[in-house]
Amino acid sequence: MTTPSTPALSPSPFAAPGSKHDVETGTVLTPRFGADGLVAAVVVDAEGGEVVMMAWMDAAALARTIETGEAHYYSRSRGRPWKKGEESGHVQTVVELRVDCDQDAVLLKVRTAGTGANCHTGRHSCFYRRVALGGPAGSATLAFTGDAPLFDPDAVYKHG
Amino acid sequence: MTTPSTPALSPSPFAAPGSKHDVETGTVLTPRFGADGLVAAVVVDAEGGEVVMMAWMDAAALARTIETGEAHYYSRSRGRPWKKGEESGHVQTVVELRVDCDQDAVLLKVRTAGTGANCHTGRHSCFYRRVALGGPAGSATLAFTGDAPLFDPDAVYKHG
Repeated sequence: MTTPSTPALSPSPFAAPGSKHDVETGTVLTPRFGADGLVAAVVVDAEGGEVVMMAWMDAAALARTIETGEAHYYSRSRGRPWKKGEESGHVQTVVELRVDCDQDAVLLKVRTAGTGANCHTGRHSCFYRRVALGGPAGSATLAFTGDAPLFDPDAVYKHG
Repeated sequence: MTTPSTPALSPSPFAAPGSKHDVETGTVLTPRFGADGLVAAVVVDAEGGEVVMMAWMDAAALARTIETGEAHYYSRSRGRPWKKGEESGHVQTVVELRVDCDQDAVLLKVRTAGTGANCHTGRHSCFYRRVALGGPAGSATLAFTGDAPLFDPDAVYKHG
């Protein structure tokens, strides 16, 4: 039995991180999962190169991503790992996976199936609004970039 | 006095997030800081478009970034907000700032001063190693991309 609220309990196949020097200059993947058991995952469109989403992975999701070549994440709201596209069909094939200097973040370059949408709102990218710069932060406004929904989320997702 | 270990105590100028619908479709920035008081920040080179680092912001760092147009982050290891480049000179001018669908992550497109390095190891990008795909995750190896250090960190950083 797994406990949904404790991702740190997921079995981890990865070796424990060594020294700072080993983590930064080594050639073995030793992810540094946070207190919540997660690493950050930045997702880029393999063709256009633009950032399309930011998500999280526990050890199980990262392991499945590496072994299958298809992106898996950890849903903090649902408390479990999930395969991207399992409901919507927008499976992400991982063209390249990178890890950052201190191994607490990974970068995925993906090709997305179906409509190519990566955001649960139906858009290609989750980053569909620009923040106005230069004024008081407390009244910063957002402007839509024009990234229109490619599908109707209400018709695709059953979990609300 | 601020308490370094409790970033959530930083004064926040931002309005509290409203409903899911408001957060996802609204035109007001209402960041959803985590239990640790932080949002994720993905940083892209404004010229080449590649992801160069992944960092964190508390409310103070995000507010200063918006108001000054220069990137500020929250250092989890040092327990305080900091201006990128305050020691190394690699100040990041924010060309564009975006927020994601659920407003718990921001995307910065930056021009970096000095050598153009964004990683504390001296490299242009923190993502300088590729993870081998397809084999058992527990023995996944890393290959360097060839992103060589642009400066000597030991000569630049005093804080070790």
